[in-house]
Formats: sequence, C-alpha cells, structure tokens
Amino acid sequence: MKKIKVGVIGLGCRGSSLLKHILMQMDTIEVTAVCDEYYDRVQKGVEIVKNACEKTVYGTTDATELIYRNDVEAVFIFSSWESHIPLAIECMKASKPVGVEVGGAYSVEQCWNVVHTYEQTKTPIMLLENCCYGRRELMALNMVRKGLLGQIVHCEGGYCHDLRDEVAGGAKNRHYRLRNYISRNCENYPTHELGPIAKILNINHGNRFMTLTSVASKAAGLYEYVRENMPDDKTLADVKFSQGDIVTTVITCAGGETVKLTLDTTLPRYYSRQFTVRGTKGMYEEVTDSVYLDGDGKHFKWKEEWGNAEKYEKEYEHPVWKEYLQSGVYGSHEGIDWLIMNDFINCIIENKPFEIDVYDMASWMCVTALSEQSIALGGAAVAFPDFTNGKWQLNKI
Amino acid sequence: MKKIKVGVIGLGCRGSSLLKHILMQMDTIEVTAVCDEYYDRVQKGVEIVKNACEKTVYGTTDATELIYRNDVEAVFIFSSWESHIPLAIECMKASKPVGVEVGGAYSVEQCWNVVHTYEQTKTPIMLLENCCYGRRELMALNMVRKGLLGQIVHCEGGYCHDLRDEVAGGAKNRHYRLRNYISRNCENYPTHELGPIAKILNINHGNRFMTLTSVASKAAGLYEYVRENMPDDKTLADVKFSQGDIVTTVITCAGGETVKLTLDTTLPRYYSRQFTVRGTKGMYEEVTDSVYLDGDGKHFKWKEEWGNAEKYEKEYEHPVWKEYLQSGVYGSHEGIDWLIMNDFINCIIENKPFEIDVYDMASWMCVTALSEQSIALGGAAVAFPDFTNGKWQLNKI
Repeated sequence: MKKIKVGVIGLGCRGSSLLKHILMQMDTIEVTAVCDEYYDRVQKGVEIVKNACEKTVYGTTDATELIYRNDVEAVFIFSSWESHIPLAIECMKASKPVGVEVGGAYSVEQCWNVVHTYEQTKTPIMLLENCCYGRRELMALNMVRKGLLGQIVHCEGGYCHDLRDEVAGGAKNRHYRLRNYISRNCENYPTHELGPIAKILNINHGNRFMTLTSVASKAAGLYEYVRENMPDDKTLADVKFSQGDIVTTVITCAGGETVKLTLDTTLPRYYSRQFTVRGTKGMYEEVTDSVYLDGDGKHFKWKEEWGNAEKYEKEYEHPVWKEYLQSGVYGSHEGIDWLIMNDFINCIIENKPFEIDVYDMASWMCVTALSEQSIALGGAAVAFPDFTNGKWQLNKI
Repeated sequence: MKKIKVGVIGLGCRGSSLLKHILMQMDTIEVTAVCDEYYDRVQKGVEIVKNACEKTVYGTTDATELIYRNDVEAVFIFSSWESHIPLAIECMKASKPVGVEVGGAYSVEQCWNVVHTYEQTKTPIMLLENCCYGRRELMALNMVRKGLLGQIVHCEGGYCHDLRDEVAGGAKNRHYRLRNYISRNCENYPTHELGPIAKILNINHGNRFMTLTSVASKAAGLYEYVRENMPDDKTLADVKFSQGDIVTTVITCAGGETVKLTLDTTLPRYYSRQFTVRGTKGMYEEVTDSVYLDGDGKHFKWKEEWGNAEKYEKEYEHPVWKEYLQSGVYGSHEGIDWLIMNDFINCIIENKPFEIDVYDMASWMCVTALSEQSIALGGAAVAFPDFTNGKWQLNKI
C-alpha cells in the first residue's frame, strides 16, 4: 500500500507529542519533513523520526519551504494559534491537503479568507477537532439522531482546564498561550466543546449560528498565581493579564436553539468539557455523566444516578467507538487523537470528504473573534456571518 | 411571651402549605386573618386554622382590608407574582412589617417604588428567599468569608426544575405561572439562586450588580407536553408559549465578578439550583456536591470526589445550620422554610434588621424585568439601577 508523505509544522509540546506517539505509529503515512520556527525544536523533531524509523527526515524553520516540497503530499499544522489560518491557506494554494490543530480565529476576515481559498482551490482542509471523536460526544450524537432526546433545544460545553502553570510557564517554554492571555480577552479556545455541539445541531446543514454574546469575569487567577508561585520571575512580575478567568458565551441558532460555552482556564478546578444536550424528551450531562429521560422523575435519585450513562452504552455506543473498542483504543486523550488522525489520512487515501470541513472550521473558529468584539462592547450581541452564503439551507447531513 | 398577630395573603398551593405546615406550627405568631382572591381558598384557609388551633380566623377576598385590620401586626404575602410588590407597598404604607414570597419584578419602576416606599415609611420589609438559608449555600458563604476559596471571581446558579405539569395545569388550578409562560419571555424566577450568590458577592455592601445580558432558547417543551399529555384540553390547544425553555443570563458586578443564571423549567431534567462558587483558591459546585481546592489536581479523581462536600461540614458548617441540626431540622424544602419564617418573626420581635432588606429585594427582583428587556433586544446588555444611590460603597457586611 502506498503511504501518504506528510510534512509536520509545529513541534512544540503538542506537535512533538503527536509526531512521536501518533504519526510515527501510523502505517498509512511517511513523515518526510518537519518544521518549527525554533531550530532546536526542528532538531528534536528530526530525532524523533530517526529514533522511530531510522530515517533522516528533512528539517527546516521555513514553513513555506516545507509546504512546497515535492516529497510533501499532505500537511499537519500543529504550530501557534496565530499561524494556523495563514499556513492552512498556503497549503491549499499549494494543493496540499491540510489538517489543522484547533484554536480560535483572530478576525472574521481571516475565516472568510480560508473559505474563499478553499472555494478557489478545492484543496481538502480539515480542522483536527479531536473532541468530535469523543466517546460520550459520539454516543450523545447517536442518541440525538435516533430521537431519544426529542427535539434539541439547548446545548452546553466548556473548556474547563486549569492551565495556570502552562500559561505562566510560557515565559520559559515559548508557549503562544502566554501572549494571548496578556493581550486579549475572549473565548480563546471554543472548538473542543462547540465542534461536537455543532454536529448535534446540524450547523451548516439545515441550521446555522446566528448571534453571540460574551461576557468575561475579571482576570484574577494568573496574577495571583504568578505572585505566589513565581516570585523571582522578572518577565512576569509587572504583567497584567487581559484574559478574564471565566468567559461565558451564548450563541443562538437559526432553529431557535441556544448554545452556552464556558472558557475556564485560570482558576483551580477539575478538568471538564461540561458537554450537555437538552431536548424535549431528555438530556445527557457530562458533569454527572448521566442520562435523564422524560418520565424518569419518579425514580431518578440524584446522587444514585450519577454515572448512569454507562447503562446506555450497549444500545447507543456510536459505531465508530464500537469498532474502536474492539480493535483496541490507543494513544493520547483517551484515544481520540489516534481516531482523528487516522480518519484524516483515510479520507485522503480514499478521496472522501472530511468529517469537519472548511465551513465548520470557519464557523467554529470565528467564535473567538466575535467573542472578543462582544466582550469589548460590554456584552453586546454580535452577528455570525453565513460562511456558506445560503448553502446551509440545502446541505444534507 | 406576646405573639405577633399575622395576616396571610395568598392561599394557593404554596400559601396554604406554608400556613398549615409552617405558620400553624410556630409558637411566636397567631394567625388572625387570611385572604385570597378566590373565596373557596379563603374557606380552606379558615379551615386550616380551625383544625390546627380551634380558632375561627377572619377570612376575606380583599387584601387591602386584611392589611389595615387592627388585629394584623405583620403580613405574609404568598399570592401571585404580579401582586407581590403592590401589596408589599400597601403593607409598608399601613406600617405593617411584611414578608414577601419570591418572584420577579415586572418593571424596574416598581422596584424603585418599593425602595421609595420603604425609605419614606421605614416599615421593615423582607423578601422571603428561603434558599439564602440553604445548608450548602450557607456553608459556601462560610467558606468564602473564612477565605478558603480565595478571591471570588464567578458564581453560577439556576432554577432547574421541570414544571411542565404545574405550568400546563394552571388552566385548571388557576396558577399564575401559566399566564406568565404564555405572555412573557424572561428570567422569571431568579432569586432562589441569585440570593445566596448576592450574599457571597457582598452585593449592596461594597459591591453591586452593573449589567445583564439574557438569551432565551426557543419554547418547545410546553407545546409538545400539552399536545402529548393533554390532547383533550381545549383551553391550551391553540396556545403558543412565549417563554423560552432555557434562559441564560450573565450579570457583571462592580468588583469585576460575573454571575451566570439559568432558568430551566420546561424540559425534562432532575431538580438542581446549580449553585457554584469560583475563587482563586478553590470552588464549590452543587451539581457534584464537591469542593475543589487549589493543589487538589494531583489527587482529585473526578467521579470518586463527587459528594466530597460532606467532608467539609465539620469545619465549615454555618453556625445557623450547626444549631438547626442540633435542635432538629423541620418542615418543607429540607428545613429552609421553617428557618426563614422563624428568622423573619424573630427579627420583628427583637426589632432587628432583616437578613434580606429592601435593596436586596429590588436588585434581585429587577433581574426579571431587565432580562425581559435584554431578550427582547436580541441579547443586548442592559444596566442595573443603583437602588442604594451610592450607599453600597459605604454599607458594611
């Protein structure tokens, strides 16, 4: 079988981990080139490949050079948030199918640019939103499609992850989060929760996002963390962070549904994506991992039902996960990194459309730019563009 | 000991239950008059008193008559939402201390009126927000006051209670909720969650509510419920409900804190008030009844820690509940109805200020009127009045 020759851009913590633990384990690809803006990371990337398969791979600090190389047929972009869309556009221009790690957009205009470039070049592009492959997210999607939860009215999700050490550590480890937390105040990482919700609400396929309001709390978590945990750090001593600790965003949809998103990354808490689906016949709630169906009132004993979602696996496990559990769940983030990378490559090999397309990518990523506007305007409602220019009315699921 | 002579207005489901199970059990009061707009309910109220203490109490359908009776020293208002503020104002004018069941306001103007009337008459008035006496709410307040959770940044709460049968049943049982769900779209019942949060955030005592945005989902739950469960009901057959199933409201405070409220009453779900407090040093979360403190990351195992708040009772149980648990928890809503009614009467007897005053009442109740505006304006941010006219800066806790 012919292997797809791939180039990898971005070899920080996430990129080097994906390279080593996922890409080097896939027998459908051959990594032919690696790139990072820092030379030491390029060297480390070359080493990872060498150690895994004894091959000397091409390394460069020039992303454009990598994209246009003849031995690169497809590209993974794992670099900083700011570089995702410009590099993805370059890949499409070079006719190289491209998978882009998640992050938010900086302007609505750059979301339009990625859509326009796709429409001109037809080069396949996929946002690598691994949470769309989450076990419970797919089980809930399956429940919804089978009608178990009735008409869907409201969904919730969050990126609730205490990242204080990572963000503040950015001064030492060159993490792009640091500059974003210093300069910006927005829903900076919406897609982990919004992707699965968009699938459930058929966004761009009979439905679309209409408006958004975002409100941010004060920024207190990082300031206190730096003072108490890094008293000798001179780079951060006088820094004030713009990013509010908790950002609450509410989206309305053409079908009348609402979506509540929470960014919650700089206060102490346990990890959660707060994934919740509410319909006229029932709900799924990740925080308690429970399913509640209409009529359950009489026998539903709150604490006793926590975790009852397990009981629904037999009937509602998504086919993708049924197969995955049989073949063996593998790799980071409870197996979803492996699932999405495989799916991305298999679609290229089989010339099939990606699960997450350029319109999904633009509508999910633009939440960051819109939320920045809404917060700056004191919580004003702002409008989503229709990136499909009306095609959402016709697109089938 | 002299007993306070009280009049009771409003003998629907809630009023008659409070009369029978709470008021008639209190040895600090004597119920001397009862009132409801419906005569059959007056008769039932007179009977409840007769059965409990062999006394024939005065019954009337005229609330003003009751308020001005010489044998009424204090008044309880348990009637429809629309009547709360007008009747409370009448009580203050008649110099009768008044306790008002919870509900939302219909205009900002009527909240000002209740404040102005209090300032002119100085008649004590208290919003009977029983959830301010909730065990976990008071334990969290205690944790906050003792600094366990650090600087408070964000709070959440909700009125998450499947009321479809009660609302739709209003056609038969004359419940005021029905007309409100037909005509209005707003955060119609904010105080159960907002009251305890306002106490934690020192609202009107060094802090105040500044802005609010509200967004409502479509109204699908009741429509479907009526069609499937009441196919023969002619009064509701053609009714369209204005009230969205889920209303999400975000409030900002002068201190930079945010408060997220959820109204969630017409879709299937388990009961919850979603009470959550987030600080720079830790959190309490009602949905999982758990406490998470800074540094817990390494040993905090999600599902295993559900319910761990119990472990904090020994150190952080609020003094009010410590005493209550010793003396014996009594009555409806896990004992909080008894607690608040006792507190209200004891403050009158001892001539002490109420725990919840007219400024609390106005700022909490006006959320309903403001949310109605915000939803009608497509989620626009609207401003809270300062009902204290600047005194919030000076008021001590």
